[in-house]
Amino acid sequence: MTYCVGIHIDAGMVFLSDSRTNAGLDQISTFRKMIVYEKPNDRFIVMLSAGNLSVSQSVREMFQVESVPRESEQGEPGVGGPLTIWNATSMFDVARVLGSTVRRVKHDHGESLQKAGIDFNASLILGGQIKGEAMRMFLVYPAGNFIEATRETPYFQIGESKYGKPVLDRLIVPTTPLDTAAKCALVSMDSTLKANLSVGLPLDLLVYREGTLASDRIVCIDDSNPYFRMIRDTWGQRLREAFDEIDEPSWDSSDARHPLRVKSERYAPMRKIANPNEKIV
Amino acid sequence: MTYCVGIHIDAGMVFLSDSRTNAGLDQISTFRKMIVYEKPNDRFIVMLSAGNLSVSQSVREMFQVESVPRESEQGEPGVGGPLTIWNATSMFDVARVLGSTVRRVKHDHGESLQKAGIDFNASLILGGQIKGEAMRMFLVYPAGNFIEATRETPYFQIGESKYGKPVLDRLIVPTTPLDTAAKCALVSMDSTLKANLSVGLPLDLLVYREGTLASDRIVCIDDSNPYFRMIRDTWGQRLREAFDEIDEPSWDSSDARHPLRVKSERYAPMRKIANPNEKIV
Repeated sequence: MTYCVGIHIDAGMVFLSDSRTNAGLDQISTFRKMIVYEKPNDRFIVMLSAGNLSVSQSVREMFQVESVPRESEQGEPGVGGPLTIWNATSMFDVARVLGSTVRRVKHDHGESLQKAGIDFNASLILGGQIKGEAMRMFLVYPAGNFIEATRETPYFQIGESKYGKPVLDRLIVPTTPLDTAAKCALVSMDSTLKANLSVGLPLDLLVYREGTLASDRIVCIDDSNPYFRMIRDTWGQRLREAFDEIDEPSWDSSDARHPLRVKSERYAPMRKIANPNEKIV
Repeated sequence: MTYCVGIHIDAGMVFLSDSRTNAGLDQISTFRKMIVYEKPNDRFIVMLSAGNLSVSQSVREMFQVESVPRESEQGEPGVGGPLTIWNATSMFDVARVLGSTVRRVKHDHGESLQKAGIDFNASLILGGQIKGEAMRMFLVYPAGNFIEATRETPYFQIGESKYGKPVLDRLIVPTTPLDTAAKCALVSMDSTLKANLSVGLPLDLLVYREGTLASDRIVCIDDSNPYFRMIRDTWGQRLREAFDEIDEPSWDSSDARHPLRVKSERYAPMRKIANPNEKIV
């Protein structure tokens, strides 16, 4: 399994990936799941991958040389040469190239994998910026189709996403500052690491500031990283303090503030079977 | 789907269940998933159910009349009449009766369900106390086998369990006070309700105090319940405050406290592909 998260907010983008790959509990390895495709001062593209490792490694490799026919403004295909991630003028086209790459890998390996009883699965988060265009982030599915992050849904997760979702849902909005989003991604990762053995260190974290077409905020986080250690030590404690600040339930229905024991206006009391011979009706 | 949680701590037990049943997004209904089997001053047994509704309703119905052969101390089966939930002298035997009930329902319906392409799935949390014995809690699987909660793992979840697990993991220990555990179960449910449409109100909450063989702390919580509304309004805010109290990441590697940007001692920097013709090696 895997846990990767990509956050797309006004100030920039945050990418975070774990590095555990497993084929059973006794066969775990470390493979990094983030890769950057960069053309200085022209484009900066980040990809995170989850799924079958042989598939996602092939996709990473082939993505940089994949091309799709260009659709010209006149509707004549092929004008201007094929479209690649290095000459595309929009991130939408880069996502099309990635979709095509996924389909090509599926064409090569999908049938054999299926015969071996293995699902073809690869989910990818693709984010980046091309000079002259806004930053964009996409989630690419195993069929090569994709969706784009919006202001209403400013993040994508792939892999083991559920444990770390509540904190993202509650904290990330388009106006969240960039470093705060990075902190939130790390807290989300911490919850996932605690719950699922198939997600593991080291992490790769990349923070991209809007418009820069580059990033020097890239760090590989292992268990000696001071900041992540602080989060792991602190968040549970802070969570407990927040929890303690919430009133305990009051079973006194005359409690003026927020009694727990009130009769539901719509629902009957829960069913109790007190007599061994009573039938449920 | 469903979300139910049972917590077994020193002071007592907490049971919480949602009530949404769905067969597709456009076919949702309300079915309560908690039931109490009670013999005053003798035994108090609570069951929570998840899975196919037709299966779990049959299990609920048949559980109260199910019997298994008694194994006498001399190893002669049948002495003293068959064992039921009403005459069992240990919760372990009650769990055996429940396992037998599950297998009986599977015997009746499993093959037809399988032919219809429907999984036989029923997961059950069973907790209770019989006079003279300690409280015990079990998780019963679709095959009728079961495990028991321990001090190391003092809670069970069934259904859509992942969203609400981190908060239980971090907050529940055997010495947690009973009302605090109830509050924690409600926070865990709140996270799940926010994330998954297949979990819905009303909730049934039951708090059992060790040794009482009864409970008057039973409440059906709908969206007008003052305490649960307070939790839904407050927890997100408290979580945000706790999050804000954690230091933002420091990209200054000379930061004396806990810099984020430090070079990993073990791992290379993340891979960047800067040249269109570079090959991944």
